[in-house]
Amino acid sequence: MKRGLSNSASDGVSFTPLVVLELVEDTKEEAVTWLLEKIDSLEGAELLVGRLRKDSWGDDGGNPNVFVVGASRDRLLSGAEDVGLVKESNDGSMRGFTFVNRNNFKDFKGDSDEFLSVAECQYIIKHELDTLRAKEENSVPGYAKVKLYPGKSILRRLLSKGILVQVFPLHDKEELKKLSHSWYGKLRLKYQPLDEIRRYFGESLALYFGFLEYFTFALVPMALIGVPYYLFAWEDYDKYVLLALFNLVWSTVVLEVWKRCCASLAYRWGTLCRKKAFEEPRPGFHGVLGYNPVTGRQEPTFSSLRRQLRVYLVSVPFVLLCLCGSLYVMMIYFSMEEWALRLHEEEQSVWSSAGLFVPSIIYAIVIEVLNRLYRYAAEFLTEWENHRLESSYQNHLILKVLVFNFLNCFASLFYIAFVLHDMKLLRQSLATLLITSQILNQMVEAFLPFWLQKRRNTKVQKQVRRAPVELPWTEQVKLEVDMSTYLGTFDDYLELFLQFGYVSLFSCVFPLAAVLAVLNNFTEMYSDALKMCQVFKRPFSEPAANMGVWQLAFETMSVIAVITNCALIGMSPQVKSCFPDSETQLILIVVAAEHVLLAFKFILAFVIPDIPKEIQLKLARLEFESMEALKKKKMQDTKKLEKQDN
Amino acid sequence: MKRGLSNSASDGVSFTPLVVLELVEDTKEEAVTWLLEKIDSLEGAELLVGRLRKDSWGDDGGNPNVFVVGASRDRLLSGAEDVGLVKESNDGSMRGFTFVNRNNFKDFKGDSDEFLSVAECQYIIKHELDTLRAKEENSVPGYAKVKLYPGKSILRRLLSKGILVQVFPLHDKEELKKLSHSWYGKLRLKYQPLDEIRRYFGESLALYFGFLEYFTFALVPMALIGVPYYLFAWEDYDKYVLLALFNLVWSTVVLEVWKRCCASLAYRWGTLCRKKAFEEPRPGFHGVLGYNPVTGRQEPTFSSLRRQLRVYLVSVPFVLLCLCGSLYVMMIYFSMEEWALRLHEEEQSVWSSAGLFVPSIIYAIVIEVLNRLYRYAAEFLTEWENHRLESSYQNHLILKVLVFNFLNCFASLFYIAFVLHDMKLLRQSLATLLITSQILNQMVEAFLPFWLQKRRNTKVQKQVRRAPVELPWTEQVKLEVDMSTYLGTFDDYLELFLQFGYVSLFSCVFPLAAVLAVLNNFTEMYSDALKMCQVFKRPFSEPAANMGVWQLAFETMSVIAVITNCALIGMSPQVKSCFPDSETQLILIVVAAEHVLLAFKFILAFVIPDIPKEIQLKLARLEFESMEALKKKKMQDTKKLEKQDN
Repeated sequence: MKRGLSNSASDGVSFTPLVVLELVEDTKEEAVTWLLEKIDSLEGAELLVGRLRKDSWGDDGGNPNVFVVGASRDRLLSGAEDVGLVKESNDGSMRGFTFVNRNNFKDFKGDSDEFLSVAECQYIIKHELDTLRAKEENSVPGYAKVKLYPGKSILRRLLSKGILVQVFPLHDKEELKKLSHSWYGKLRLKYQPLDEIRRYFGESLALYFGFLEYFTFALVPMALIGVPYYLFAWEDYDKYVLLALFNLVWSTVVLEVWKRCCASLAYRWGTLCRKKAFEEPRPGFHGVLGYNPVTGRQEPTFSSLRRQLRVYLVSVPFVLLCLCGSLYVMMIYFSMEEWALRLHEEEQSVWSSAGLFVPSIIYAIVIEVLNRLYRYAAEFLTEWENHRLESSYQNHLILKVLVFNFLNCFASLFYIAFVLHDMKLLRQSLATLLITSQILNQMVEAFLPFWLQKRRNTKVQKQVRRAPVELPWTEQVKLEVDMSTYLGTFDDYLELFLQFGYVSLFSCVFPLAAVLAVLNNFTEMYSDALKMCQVFKRPFSEPAANMGVWQLAFETMSVIAVITNCALIGMSPQVKSCFPDSETQLILIVVAAEHVLLAFKFILAFVIPDIPKEIQLKLARLEFESMEALKKKKMQDTKKLEKQDN
Repeated sequence: MKRGLSNSASDGVSFTPLVVLELVEDTKEEAVTWLLEKIDSLEGAELLVGRLRKDSWGDDGGNPNVFVVGASRDRLLSGAEDVGLVKESNDGSMRGFTFVNRNNFKDFKGDSDEFLSVAECQYIIKHELDTLRAKEENSVPGYAKVKLYPGKSILRRLLSKGILVQVFPLHDKEELKKLSHSWYGKLRLKYQPLDEIRRYFGESLALYFGFLEYFTFALVPMALIGVPYYLFAWEDYDKYVLLALFNLVWSTVVLEVWKRCCASLAYRWGTLCRKKAFEEPRPGFHGVLGYNPVTGRQEPTFSSLRRQLRVYLVSVPFVLLCLCGSLYVMMIYFSMEEWALRLHEEEQSVWSSAGLFVPSIIYAIVIEVLNRLYRYAAEFLTEWENHRLESSYQNHLILKVLVFNFLNCFASLFYIAFVLHDMKLLRQSLATLLITSQILNQMVEAFLPFWLQKRRNTKVQKQVRRAPVELPWTEQVKLEVDMSTYLGTFDDYLELFLQFGYVSLFSCVFPLAAVLAVLNNFTEMYSDALKMCQVFKRPFSEPAANMGVWQLAFETMSVIAVITNCALIGMSPQVKSCFPDSETQLILIVVAAEHVLLAFKFILAFVIPDIPKEIQLKLARLEFESMEALKKKKMQDTKKLEKQDN
């Protein structure tokens, strides 16, 4: 196979390594042998396994239990059908790939390898490894305590028991070079190479970059409109009303149109019409052994009532308590701020003016610490809720973290706007928060790990060079084993979500926010790309057809934005001066306007179809064809039956 | 076949007639012959057609072009597969029926007829007739102007050109008797026999009765809580706040729980997991001849842009104009009312006190007339919008009529509540409107047609008795040809929708509304049942898994109810007296409370799953099994291929 990874018999491995398995250093040899036998005997599978030779680690030794896995081409094609890959067929429509009809698919040319991308191959191998199931064994050989249940995934068990350290796909140096060249090779304005990103990293990540790009472009009109407001200091609120109205329509339309773009991308990548496979329980799930009501297989079961009780009686109160705590901390900050100001006014010394910054600094640090602590608590609680599926675990975790982060970021702004009524301070705080958070994020997220990784790489490479023979791929494996693991798109989406909040919630007070966001996102695209290509282990590609719970989060934020903008406009002195006699009337008009705008927003979201017409048609055609095929088959069956009857 | 319809060779028809086709009296004979040949030659179909003998009409003659259609049992079973019927299989799960596996289904016992209900048989025959397609013909024989397009339904064409008067299924006297006995035979409180209704009238109608029953029971707690308020004249608004809060939670929970009930019913009836067949264009759809992008068949096409333009540039402005007109009429009514009151105060005569009622009477009449006119206009406009699918035609029509009816019914109440601030008048008007509309509806809807039908039946029966031989089913056909046609559940749902509005919008002012609604609905159940069994032609059964757009309508109403109730509470003198100094503060608190309640409502709707867990599991198991079967099939295919390769 022509892969970017070199492939020579002298490595002790005669295939292209795709996925790395790392067992703990002191794994008992019988367990290793048993696992390898298991992989070898996988029904219908020709997975290929090789062990990293001990001498290749050089003098200081290394983990001897690192394995690489590959597969034959036919095995991968057949696996592509198992995982339900959807590919473009010769007639231009997207169809579920089947091995039997492989010649009907576009780009399938005899024995060329271009049909499946490396990421897809790695995904297939991971799927095959995950379906490695125990049969008669009761426990892992050598580990009497690690029980196995018939029909349950062995790898997940080993992973959750800590015998298996990690499973990860290898980078593909050649493709990576190409990708990084077209992605961030030249510093010039261009579209993200989404198809290439998807080919290398999978759909989930490509969708994130697609959204990042889309969102940045969508911010440009907001930014353009914001600039004159800032330059000419247009403080008349009739102009701000216009801006807020524009912002309202903008946020709704942007999110709706993104759904359509997302559907187009997902259709092109074959994830839109992909049938979801049956979801296995997540590795951490535990419970009394019972039978799954769906599959009939033996597996741990956990009463959903107990889970609900845990969620509603423990997690929800805990989250609410944390929110209250966060509000309390905020109140302390504001009183400290006041106190520092009073001190400064009394003393007027250099020290006291420096002291003005102390509360903000303390608050920023405390917030950061609280965020970390809360994150651990949220993970612990969600783990304890014992969700059966990874997806529902993720949703619960995202929701918990989202609510807390929202409050931490925006509570002080809400307080300044709606309790203190201080628009000048609001503008100041908004600018400070936005700018510092953006700078900090870029630093912590990309450049620091990049620098650390660079340092480590040089160290490892020095070690490796001392080894007797130059072994390109073993070297690569050794480098990548120690790279940090990319934990998914969670933090990246969260950052965008908070940014969306800064831009839309108080847009009519600080129109420059959109400009800052656009500038940040342009560098963000580069730093995220750098991070993915240079800093992290390659993640397994994850099929995704949309942003999932994030779409809902962004939509909720845009609803809240309507409310805050209406309130801000109602509170502005210019609007107030139009109703000098009756404040009541003003409020009633603002509230009525808000309701009308919200209704308009919901109607707009309802009227814009989620899937573009063109793709709806294509999906309908597929559906129609499969129905016709079924009908035809039925007719043939009936004819056969009739023949038999005669 | 043992069917309720008698079946004797002396009728000239040797099968059980199920469906009646009526062509216009002066149809050219060649067209009749052609149509009958067409039906006879239906591929793989053994539809049986018989013509009503001319002499059976008695002396005064009748339409000679009335045909009855039936089918053989195997034909019906095979058709059940075509229409995608879902039946309970022997292992208790619901599966798509297939002729080949017919013995795996519960209740399928050799050659018994109980497996398919008469309604299902009629639905199957209708589907077969609908799929009667033109092949080479360019026009209907004898009607050169009635063009035919290859692949298009002939019957729909004949129907839209007026050659075919009607197609309807026959009542089944025996089953009808049983059904009406268990439905409204004895005047005692009991559940609706939903399964029997569904067996006789199909899912769509059974769901309506299910909802009617569910809604009535759901109103009982509201009614019980409302009674003491009325009896003890609890006018303190702190008690009304409680009522309004209860009402809010109630309306949300009721609608969410109904979704779950509905899913259970639909699962049991096999419509929940039924695959939607490809929807053919509705008979009235016209346009330039082109190719359908989905099927590739030739059919009229109509640019969706043009339709959108018609909707947004003509229909929407027209509806808005009508709404304004309706508001204008209401304003005239209020000024007339005022004028009559002034006149009465000036004169104090018997005539002037009678004159007090004049404006209300005129207004009621005008409203009724406007409603009718608007209904025609809405139908005309929706027809003109030229929707391709019946479902989208229905949705657009429902939306138009809904908005107008909502305004007509509630605008005066809103005006009294929020402009006149007259709670006493509001209560009075609400009571008057609710009671009169309920009485009128019951009269117009059921008892009047019932009485008319009774009269006509006696007349026809007298005629028939004069005929030489007693022909039970020809007599029945003749009776039913002249019965009125049931136009679908639209008006029934509309009535419930408006009732829901009366109960929930101003519930905290008139708590007795729920009591009146409960009383009305108990009689409504009887009158609707009577109407379906005695007054109307039997409608074709319509598979439905939910209430469709009505669910959305009810949910929107419950959102509006939150807003109005909050506003009413905020306006009450008792609440106002708590904030004697600052009206502003009061309004802000009310608005904040409203937002919190709405948020709570949305979260509640989000948290309650739409499909009960039990049924989710069953659906998941089906999905899983079909995936396993696919995998198995794939393994076999691969093995076959391998054998061939060797």
